[in-house]
Amino acid sequence: MKEHYYDDLKIGDRFKSEPLKVTEKEVIDFAQKFDPQMFHLDRRAAERTLFKGLVASGWHTAALTMGLFVRMLNFAHGAIGLGVDELRWPNAVRPGDVITVETEILDLRPSRSKPDYGIIRLRNVTTNQQGEIVQTMLANAMVPRRSA
Amino acid sequence: MKEHYYDDLKIGDRFKSEPLKVTEKEVIDFAQKFDPQMFHLDRRAAERTLFKGLVASGWHTAALTMGLFVRMLNFAHGAIGLGVDELRWPNAVRPGDVITVETEILDLRPSRSKPDYGIIRLRNVTTNQQGEIVQTMLANAMVPRRSA
Repeated sequence: MKEHYYDDLKIGDRFKSEPLKVTEKEVIDFAQKFDPQMFHLDRRAAERTLFKGLVASGWHTAALTMGLFVRMLNFAHGAIGLGVDELRWPNAVRPGDVITVETEILDLRPSRSKPDYGIIRLRNVTTNQQGEIVQTMLANAMVPRRSA
Repeated sequence: MKEHYYDDLKIGDRFKSEPLKVTEKEVIDFAQKFDPQMFHLDRRAAERTLFKGLVASGWHTAALTMGLFVRMLNFAHGAIGLGVDELRWPNAVRPGDVITVETEILDLRPSRSKPDYGIIRLRNVTTNQQGEIVQTMLANAMVPRRSA
């Protein structure tokens, strides 16, 4: 994907990432490091929980979404996250799921303190192979201007 | 840490996690998997960015915070995240930092749909060894009732 700058974006622009398959090993590895709860760690134990099977940590879904977003928009000099609101996980990611991220640009403004940067507000929606939403979030990020 | 249930908590309760040291290797490993941007990946390149040095991805800070939170509160049968608001990273985590999480219980209510569970609203504040705040967030989580 081509490099993007703040100046390339307009309110209402939409981008769709490549698909990414999530494996059981990745789900368990992430959980062991960061979210050691039985429904993320052990397939058999997870069957007896509300999820009725192994599910990825919401923070794993968030991290995978960031990876797809970063590779999709490929901001020159990078995108610096300022904050996230309304992070929700309406359905869990399960091993074998193939997820995709869609980004919509909601707002754009130049940075007051850093003239080489602009602030973008965006919505990221992550879906699985059945079109079910596994994550939604709003975020503000600081990205470079072409003049920089 | 002892197992916790919904019924053990009161509004205003506060908990403080064990400290956790974050290594350069962990910062780079997480970035390679989930947030491949130069200020998270390469010490030398990071020196030429706004951060003036290698910093952890905000999503890495969030994942480490979850790990400290889960081990600290150790909910019987686990805590299921329903959503997160106002996730902010006022300072970056840098290699060698030692982070700690403080949780405050803001609200408690029984689940309407699942009588064996209660919903807790909490604030998590993550600080480094100098007392600087590296992350704040509000979250709702579903946790088991003792009767369950």
